[in-house]
Amino acid sequence: MSLIENLNWRHAVKAYNPTKKVSEENVDKIVEAARLTPTSSGLQPFRAIVIRDAEIKKKLAKGALNPECMENCSHVIIFAAWDRYTAERIDKVYDFTTDERDLPRGRFESYTNKLKEIYLKQPAELNFAHTARQTYIALGLALAQAAELRIASTPVEGFNNELVDEVLDLKKYGLKSVSLMYIGYSDIENDWIAPMKKVRIPKEEFVLEF
Amino acid sequence: MSLIENLNWRHAVKAYNPTKKVSEENVDKIVEAARLTPTSSGLQPFRAIVIRDAEIKKKLAKGALNPECMENCSHVIIFAAWDRYTAERIDKVYDFTTDERDLPRGRFESYTNKLKEIYLKQPAELNFAHTARQTYIALGLALAQAAELRIASTPVEGFNNELVDEVLDLKKYGLKSVSLMYIGYSDIENDWIAPMKKVRIPKEEFVLEF
Repeated sequence: MSLIENLNWRHAVKAYNPTKKVSEENVDKIVEAARLTPTSSGLQPFRAIVIRDAEIKKKLAKGALNPECMENCSHVIIFAAWDRYTAERIDKVYDFTTDERDLPRGRFESYTNKLKEIYLKQPAELNFAHTARQTYIALGLALAQAAELRIASTPVEGFNNELVDEVLDLKKYGLKSVSLMYIGYSDIENDWIAPMKKVRIPKEEFVLEF
Repeated sequence: MSLIENLNWRHAVKAYNPTKKVSEENVDKIVEAARLTPTSSGLQPFRAIVIRDAEIKKKLAKGALNPECMENCSHVIIFAAWDRYTAERIDKVYDFTTDERDLPRGRFESYTNKLKEIYLKQPAELNFAHTARQTYIALGLALAQAAELRIASTPVEGFNNELVDEVLDLKKYGLKSVSLMYIGYSDIENDWIAPMKKVRIPKEEFVLEF
Protein backbone atom coordinates (compact mmCIF):
# COMPACT_ATOMS: atom_id res chain seq x y z
CA MET A 1 0.00 0.00 0.00
CA SER A 2 1.16 3.50 -0.72
CA LEU A 3 1.92 6.10 1.93
CA ILE A 4 -1.17 8.08 0.89
CA GLU A 5 -3.38 5.00 1.27
CA ASN A 6 -1.84 4.34 4.67
CA LEU A 7 -2.36 7.93 5.82
CA ASN A 8 -5.96 7.77 4.67
CA TRP A 9 -6.44 4.50 6.59
CA ARG A 10 -5.18 5.82 9.94
CA HIS A 11 -6.93 7.98 12.49
CA ALA A 12 -6.18 9.00 16.06
CA VAL A 13 -7.73 6.05 17.90
CA LYS A 14 -9.74 6.99 20.99
CA ALA A 15 -10.12 3.56 22.67
CA TYR A 16 -7.90 0.49 22.69
CA ASN A 17 -8.61 -3.20 23.15
CA PRO A 18 -6.49 -4.09 26.21
CA THR A 19 -6.28 -7.79 25.28
CA LYS A 20 -4.55 -7.40 21.90
CA LYS A 21 -0.81 -6.80 21.83
CA VAL A 22 1.37 -5.56 18.98
CA SER A 23 4.05 -8.11 18.10
CA GLU A 24 7.59 -7.18 19.06
CA GLU A 25 8.56 -7.53 15.41
CA ASN A 26 6.11 -4.77 14.53
CA VAL A 27 7.18 -2.58 17.46
CA ASP A 28 10.70 -2.90 16.06
CA LYS A 29 9.55 -1.71 12.64
CA ILE A 30 7.82 1.35 14.11
CA VAL A 31 10.91 2.26 16.10
CA GLU A 32 13.08 1.64 13.05
CA ALA A 33 11.10 4.20 11.04
CA ALA A 34 11.80 6.68 13.85
CA ARG A 35 15.48 5.75 13.89
CA LEU A 36 15.78 6.32 10.13
CA THR A 37 14.22 9.78 10.48
CA PRO A 38 16.21 12.58 8.86
CA THR A 39 17.15 15.26 11.39
CA SER A 40 18.88 18.61 11.39
CA SER A 41 22.58 18.10 10.57
CA GLY A 42 22.03 14.38 11.12
CA LEU A 43 22.33 14.79 14.88
CA GLN A 44 19.32 12.62 15.80
CA PRO A 45 18.92 14.64 19.00
CA PHE A 46 16.20 12.45 20.51
CA ARG A 47 15.41 8.94 21.64
CA ALA A 48 12.40 6.65 21.34
CA ILE A 49 11.27 5.19 24.65
CA VAL A 50 9.18 2.04 24.47
CA ILE A 51 6.92 1.40 27.45
CA ARG A 52 5.64 -2.14 27.97
CA ASP A 53 5.53 -2.30 31.78
CA ALA A 54 1.92 -2.08 33.04
CA GLU A 55 2.95 -0.47 36.33
CA ILE A 56 4.86 2.28 34.57
CA LYS A 57 1.95 2.84 32.18
CA LYS A 58 -0.30 3.26 35.22
CA LYS A 59 2.04 5.85 36.70
CA LEU A 60 2.26 7.74 33.39
CA ALA A 61 -1.52 7.57 32.96
CA LYS A 62 -1.89 9.92 35.93
CA GLY A 63 -0.48 12.67 33.71
CA ALA A 64 -2.44 11.75 30.58
CA LEU A 65 -5.55 13.48 29.23
CA ASN A 66 -6.72 10.05 28.09
CA PRO A 67 -5.55 7.70 30.86
CA GLU A 68 -7.61 4.77 29.57
CA CYS A 69 -5.84 4.86 26.22
CA MET A 70 -2.49 4.93 28.02
CA GLU A 71 -3.42 1.91 30.12
CA ASN A 72 -5.23 -0.12 27.47
CA CYS A 73 -2.96 0.37 24.49
CA SER A 74 -0.37 -2.26 23.72
CA HIS A 75 2.76 -0.10 23.88
CA VAL A 76 3.49 3.57 24.49
CA ILE A 77 6.32 5.12 22.47
CA ILE A 78 7.64 8.37 23.89
CA PHE A 79 9.83 10.77 21.93
CA ALA A 80 12.23 12.60 24.19
CA ALA A 81 14.69 15.19 22.93
CA TRP A 82 18.13 16.27 24.12
CA ASP A 83 17.72 18.94 26.77
CA ARG A 84 20.50 20.91 25.04
CA TYR A 85 23.32 20.57 22.53
CA THR A 86 26.80 19.98 23.90
CA ALA A 87 30.17 19.68 22.16
CA GLU A 88 30.41 16.08 23.42
CA ARG A 89 27.06 15.10 21.98
CA ILE A 90 27.81 16.66 18.59
CA ASP A 91 31.27 15.09 18.44
CA LYS A 92 29.97 11.67 19.44
CA VAL A 93 27.53 11.62 16.52
CA TYR A 94 30.12 12.83 14.01
CA ASP A 95 32.86 10.50 15.30
CA PHE A 96 30.47 7.59 14.90
CA THR A 97 29.52 8.79 11.40
CA THR A 98 33.10 9.10 10.20
CA ASP A 99 34.00 5.73 11.74
CA GLU A 100 31.06 4.09 9.96
CA ARG A 101 32.11 5.69 6.68
CA ASP A 102 35.81 4.80 7.04
CA LEU A 103 36.67 8.47 7.03
CA PRO A 104 39.17 10.14 9.32
CA ARG A 105 37.64 11.61 12.47
CA GLY A 106 37.39 15.35 12.10
CA ARG A 107 36.51 15.09 8.40
CA PHE A 108 33.46 17.28 9.08
CA GLU A 109 35.18 19.48 11.66
CA SER A 110 34.57 22.80 9.94
CA TYR A 111 30.87 21.93 9.89
CA THR A 112 30.68 20.73 13.50
CA ASN A 113 32.58 23.83 14.58
CA LYS A 114 29.88 25.93 12.96
CA LEU A 115 27.17 23.94 14.73
CA LYS A 116 28.92 24.42 18.07
CA GLU A 117 29.32 28.11 17.40
CA ILE A 118 25.59 28.44 16.87
CA TYR A 119 24.18 26.05 19.45
CA LEU A 120 26.54 26.37 22.38
CA LYS A 121 25.98 30.11 22.56
CA GLN A 122 22.24 29.66 22.85
CA PRO A 123 20.43 29.14 26.15
CA ALA A 124 19.41 25.51 26.76
CA GLU A 125 15.73 26.35 26.17
CA LEU A 126 16.47 27.52 22.64
CA ASN A 127 18.49 24.37 21.99
CA PHE A 128 15.58 22.31 23.28
CA ALA A 129 13.09 24.19 21.09
CA HIS A 130 15.16 22.94 18.15
CA THR A 131 15.70 19.36 19.31
CA ALA A 132 12.00 19.09 20.19
CA ARG A 133 11.01 20.05 16.64
CA GLN A 134 13.04 17.16 15.26
CA THR A 135 11.03 14.63 17.26
CA TYR A 136 7.94 15.51 15.24
CA ILE A 137 9.55 14.22 12.06
CA ALA A 138 9.99 10.88 13.83
CA LEU A 139 6.48 10.98 15.27
CA GLY A 140 5.03 11.35 11.77
CA LEU A 141 7.11 8.57 10.29
CA ALA A 142 6.36 6.24 13.21
CA LEU A 143 2.63 6.88 12.76
CA ALA A 144 2.99 6.17 9.04
CA GLN A 145 4.84 2.94 9.81
CA ALA A 146 2.12 1.82 12.24
CA ALA A 147 -0.49 2.56 9.56
CA GLU A 148 1.45 0.55 6.98
CA LEU A 149 1.24 -2.40 9.39
CA ARG A 150 -2.47 -1.67 10.02
CA ILE A 151 -1.71 -1.07 13.67
CA ALA A 152 -3.87 1.51 15.41
CA SER A 153 -2.16 4.54 16.88
CA THR A 154 -2.75 7.88 18.56
CA PRO A 155 -0.32 10.80 18.49
CA VAL A 156 -0.36 12.62 21.82
CA GLU A 157 0.96 15.96 23.01
CA GLY A 158 -1.41 16.63 25.88
CA PHE A 159 0.26 15.02 28.87
CA ASN A 160 2.21 16.00 31.94
CA ASN A 161 5.77 16.18 30.65
CA GLU A 162 7.28 16.76 34.07
CA LEU A 163 5.63 13.62 35.43
CA VAL A 164 6.83 11.53 32.48
CA ASP A 165 10.37 12.88 32.83
CA GLU A 166 10.34 12.10 36.54
CA VAL A 167 8.85 8.60 36.33
CA LEU A 168 11.37 7.61 33.64
CA ASP A 169 14.21 9.63 35.21
CA LEU A 170 14.91 11.23 31.84
CA LYS A 171 17.16 13.87 33.36
CA LYS A 172 19.71 11.11 33.83
CA TYR A 173 19.81 10.68 30.05
CA GLY A 174 19.84 14.41 29.30
CA LEU A 175 16.39 14.06 27.74
CA LYS A 176 12.99 15.74 28.05
CA SER A 177 9.76 14.19 26.80
CA VAL A 178 8.07 15.97 23.88
CA SER A 179 5.37 13.81 22.34
CA LEU A 180 4.21 10.23 22.52
CA MET A 181 2.12 7.73 20.66
CA TYR A 182 -0.09 4.88 21.70
CA ILE A 183 -0.07 1.79 19.53
CA GLY A 184 -2.30 -1.23 19.68
CA TYR A 185 -5.64 -2.38 18.36
CA SER A 186 -8.78 -0.32 18.41
CA ASP A 187 -11.67 -1.08 20.74
CA ILE A 188 -14.01 -0.51 17.84
CA GLU A 189 -17.21 -0.11 19.88
CA ASN A 190 -15.74 2.66 21.99
CA ASP A 191 -13.52 4.32 19.41
CA TRP A 192 -16.10 7.02 18.74
CA ILE A 193 -14.10 8.72 16.02
CA ALA A 194 -13.70 5.55 13.94
CA PRO A 195 -16.98 5.85 11.98
CA MET A 196 -16.47 9.54 11.27
CA LYS A 197 -15.18 10.83 7.96
CA LYS A 198 -11.54 11.86 7.90
CA VAL A 199 -11.44 15.60 7.32
CA ARG A 200 -8.60 17.69 6.01
CA ILE A 201 -8.79 21.20 4.63
CA PRO A 202 -9.13 21.20 0.84
CA LYS A 203 -6.04 21.19 -1.32
CA GLU A 204 -6.94 24.59 -2.80
CA GLU A 205 -6.72 26.08 0.66
CA PHE A 206 -3.77 24.03 1.89
CA VAL A 207 -1.42 24.78 -0.99
CA LEU A 208 -0.10 28.20 -2.00
CA GLU A 209 1.57 28.35 -5.38
CA PHE A 210 4.25 30.67 -6.72
CA MET B 1 8.21 -0.69 -1.39
CA SER B 2 7.86 -0.37 2.37
CA LEU B 3 8.35 2.86 4.29
CA ILE B 4 11.56 1.47 5.79
CA GLU B 5 12.95 0.64 2.34
CA ASN B 6 12.00 4.13 1.16
CA LEU B 7 13.66 5.80 4.15
CA ASN B 8 16.78 3.75 3.56
CA TRP B 9 16.77 4.79 -0.10
CA ARG B 10 16.60 8.52 0.53
CA HIS B 11 19.34 10.92 1.55
CA ALA B 12 19.64 14.71 1.75
CA VAL B 13 20.70 15.44 -1.81
CA LYS B 14 23.48 18.04 -2.14
CA ALA B 15 23.29 18.83 -5.88
CA TYR B 16 20.40 18.82 -8.35
CA ASN B 17 20.20 18.33 -12.08
CA PRO B 18 18.60 21.58 -13.31
CA THR B 19 17.24 20.01 -16.49
CA LYS B 20 15.04 17.34 -14.90
CA LYS B 21 11.65 18.37 -13.57
CA VAL B 22 9.34 16.49 -11.23
CA SER B 23 5.96 15.84 -12.86
CA GLU B 24 3.06 17.85 -11.49
CA GLU B 25 1.30 14.57 -10.70
CA ASN B 26 4.15 13.67 -8.36
CA VAL B 27 4.30 17.15 -6.83
CA ASP B 28 0.61 16.68 -6.05
CA LYS B 29 1.30 13.38 -4.28
CA ILE B 30 4.03 14.94 -2.13
CA VAL B 31 1.76 17.81 -1.16
CA GLU B 32 -1.08 15.36 -0.52
CA ALA B 33 1.05 13.46 2.03
CA ALA B 34 1.59 16.78 3.79
CA ARG B 35 -2.12 17.59 3.64
CA LEU B 36 -3.01 14.23 5.22
CA THR B 37 -0.57 14.85 8.06
CA PRO B 38 -2.05 14.41 11.54
CA THR B 39 -1.75 17.58 13.61
CA SER B 40 -2.50 18.69 17.14
CA SER B 41 -6.29 18.77 17.62
CA GLY B 42 -6.62 18.40 13.85
CA LEU B 43 -6.03 22.12 13.34
CA GLN B 44 -3.56 21.78 10.43
CA PRO B 45 -2.02 25.11 11.43
CA PHE B 46 0.28 25.38 8.44
CA ARG B 47 0.34 25.52 4.67
CA ALA B 48 2.54 24.01 1.96
CA ILE B 49 3.90 26.56 -0.49
CA VAL B 50 5.02 25.22 -3.86
CA ILE B 51 7.60 27.32 -5.69
CA ARG B 52 7.99 26.76 -9.42
CA ASP B 53 8.85 30.30 -10.56
CA ALA B 54 12.55 30.62 -11.42
CA GLU B 55 12.68 34.32 -10.53
CA ILE B 56 11.22 33.70 -7.08
CA LYS B 57 13.63 30.79 -6.53
CA LYS B 58 16.47 33.17 -7.39
CA LYS B 59 15.24 35.69 -4.84
CA LEU B 60 14.85 33.02 -2.16
CA ALA B 61 18.28 31.59 -2.98
CA LYS B 62 19.84 34.76 -1.58
CA GLY B 63 18.79 33.58 1.86
CA ALA B 64 19.75 29.93 1.40
CA LEU B 65 22.86 28.20 2.73
CA ASN B 66 22.85 26.13 -0.45
CA PRO B 67 21.70 28.59 -3.15
CA GLU B 68 22.63 26.25 -6.00
CA CYS B 69 20.30 23.57 -4.68
CA MET B 70 17.53 26.14 -4.39
CA GLU B 71 18.05 27.27 -7.98
CA ASN B 72 18.69 23.89 -9.60
CA CYS B 73 16.07 21.75 -7.90
CA SER B 74 12.79 21.17 -9.66
CA HIS B 75 10.41 22.57 -7.02
CA VAL B 76 10.81 24.06 -3.56
CA ILE B 77 8.13 23.21 -1.02
CA ILE B 78 8.00 25.55 1.96
CA PHE B 79 6.16 24.73 5.16
CA ALA B 80 4.83 27.86 6.82
CA ALA B 81 2.92 27.84 10.09
CA TRP B 82 0.19 30.06 11.50
CA ASP B 83 1.82 32.99 13.26
CA ARG B 84 -0.68 32.48 16.13
CA TYR B 85 -3.92 30.76 17.03
CA THR B 86 -7.08 32.83 16.83
CA ALA B 87 -10.69 32.00 17.68
CA GLU B 88 -11.61 32.53 14.03
CA ARG B 89 -8.98 30.10 12.77
CA ILE B 90 -9.97 27.42 15.26
CA ASP B 91 -13.69 27.85 14.53
CA LYS B 92 -13.14 27.77 10.78
CA VAL B 93 -11.43 24.37 10.98
CA TYR B 94 -14.06 22.90 13.28
CA ASP B 95 -16.99 24.37 11.33
CA PHE B 96 -15.58 22.79 8.19
CA THR B 97 -15.08 19.49 10.03
CA THR B 98 -18.63 19.33 11.37
CA ASP B 99 -20.04 20.35 7.97
CA GLU B 100 -18.04 17.59 6.27
CA ARG B 101 -19.30 15.06 8.84
CA ASP B 102 -22.93 16.18 8.64
CA LEU B 103 -22.80 17.14 12.31
CA PRO B 104 -24.26 20.29 13.80
CA ARG B 105 -21.79 23.16 14.06
CA GLY B 106 -20.65 23.49 17.64
CA ARG B 107 -20.67 19.70 18.18
CA PHE B 108 -17.07 19.99 19.45
CA GLU B 109 -17.60 23.32 21.20
CA SER B 110 -16.52 22.20 24.67
CA TYR B 111 -13.25 21.04 23.09
CA THR B 112 -12.67 24.16 21.00
CA ASN B 113 -13.45 26.30 24.04
CA LYS B 114 -10.67 24.47 25.89
CA LEU B 115 -8.27 25.06 23.00
CA LYS B 116 -9.11 28.76 22.96
CA GLU B 117 -8.68 28.97 26.71
CA ILE B 118 -5.17 27.57 26.39
CA TYR B 119 -3.94 29.16 23.18
CA LEU B 120 -5.50 32.61 23.20
CA LYS B 121 -3.97 33.38 26.59
CA GLN B 122 -0.47 32.61 25.32
CA PRO B 123 1.76 35.17 23.61
CA ALA B 124 1.92 34.75 19.82
CA GLU B 125 5.49 33.40 20.03
CA LEU B 126 4.37 30.49 22.18
CA ASN B 127 1.52 29.76 19.77
CA PHE B 128 4.00 29.80 16.90
CA ALA B 129 6.39 27.47 18.74
CA HIS B 130 3.51 24.99 18.74
CA THR B 131 2.30 25.50 15.16
CA ALA B 132 5.91 25.32 13.93
CA ARG B 133 6.38 21.90 15.55
CA GLN B 134 3.41 20.55 13.59
CA THR B 135 5.07 21.42 10.28
CA TYR B 136 7.81 18.89 11.00
CA ILE B 137 5.29 16.04 10.91
CA ALA B 138 4.38 17.15 7.39
CA LEU B 139 8.01 17.63 6.40
CA GLY B 140 8.77 14.01 7.37
CA LEU B 141 5.79 12.60 5.53
CA ALA B 142 6.47 14.69 2.43
CA LEU B 143 10.09 13.44 2.39
CA ALA B 144 8.81 9.87 2.75
CA GLN B 145 6.39 10.42 -0.13
CA ALA B 146 9.16 11.80 -2.34
CA ALA B 147 11.27 8.74 -1.49
CA GLU B 148 8.39 6.38 -2.35
CA LEU B 149 8.31 8.02 -5.79
CA ARG B 150 12.13 7.81 -6.02
CA ILE B 151 12.31 11.58 -6.23
CA ALA B 152 15.38 13.18 -4.69
CA SER B 153 14.83 15.62 -1.85
CA THR B 154 16.60 17.73 0.74
CA PRO B 155 15.05 18.87 4.02
CA VAL B 156 16.23 22.37 4.89
CA GLU B 157 16.09 24.49 8.00
CA GLY B 158 19.10 26.72 7.41
CA PHE B 159 17.71 29.66 5.48
CA ASN B 160 16.75 33.27 6.00
CA ASN B 161 13.16 33.00 7.23
CA GLU B 162 12.60 36.74 7.21
CA LEU B 163 13.61 36.98 3.56
CA VAL B 164 11.33 34.09 2.58
CA ASP B 165 8.41 35.59 4.50
CA GLU B 166 8.99 38.92 2.81
CA VAL B 167 9.46 37.65 -0.75
CA LEU B 168 6.27 35.57 -0.48
CA ASP B 169 4.43 38.19 1.59
CA LEU B 170 3.49 35.51 4.10
CA LYS B 171 2.35 38.06 6.67
CA LYS B 172 -0.67 38.61 4.46
CA TYR B 173 -1.64 34.97 5.04
CA GLY B 174 -0.83 35.01 8.78
CA LEU B 175 2.00 32.57 8.13
CA LYS B 176 5.70 32.34 8.95
CA SER B 177 8.10 30.01 7.15
CA VAL B 178 9.56 27.18 9.23
CA SER B 179 11.24 24.58 7.03
CA LEU B 180 11.44 23.72 3.38
CA MET B 181 12.40 20.94 1.07
CA TYR B 182 13.94 20.77 -2.34
CA ILE B 183 12.69 18.11 -4.71
CA GLY B 184 14.07 17.08 -8.04
CA TYR B 185 16.64 14.74 -9.48
CA SER B 186 20.14 14.39 -8.18
CA ASP B 187 23.16 15.68 -10.08
CA ILE B 188 24.94 12.45 -9.29
CA GLU B 189 28.46 13.64 -10.09
CA ASN B 190 28.22 16.57 -7.71
CA ASP B 191 26.03 15.04 -5.02
CA TRP B 192 29.04 14.27 -2.82
CA ILE B 193 27.04 12.55 -0.10
CA ALA B 194 25.41 10.04 -2.48
CA PRO B 195 28.19 7.42 -2.37
CA MET B 196 28.51 7.63 1.41
CA LYS B 197 26.95 5.08 3.74
CA LYS B 198 23.76 6.17 5.46
CA VAL B 199 24.52 6.40 9.16
CA ARG B 200 22.10 6.31 12.05
CA ILE B 201 22.92 5.67 15.69
CA PRO B 202 22.47 2.00 16.59
CA LYS B 203 19.11 0.75 17.77
CA GLU B 204 20.53 -0.19 21.19
CA GLU B 205 21.40 3.45 21.73
CA PHE B 206 18.35 4.95 20.09
CA VAL B 207 15.73 2.99 22.02
CA LEU B 208 15.17 3.08 25.77
CA GLU B 209 12.94 0.33 27.12
CA PHE B 210 10.73 0.23 30.19
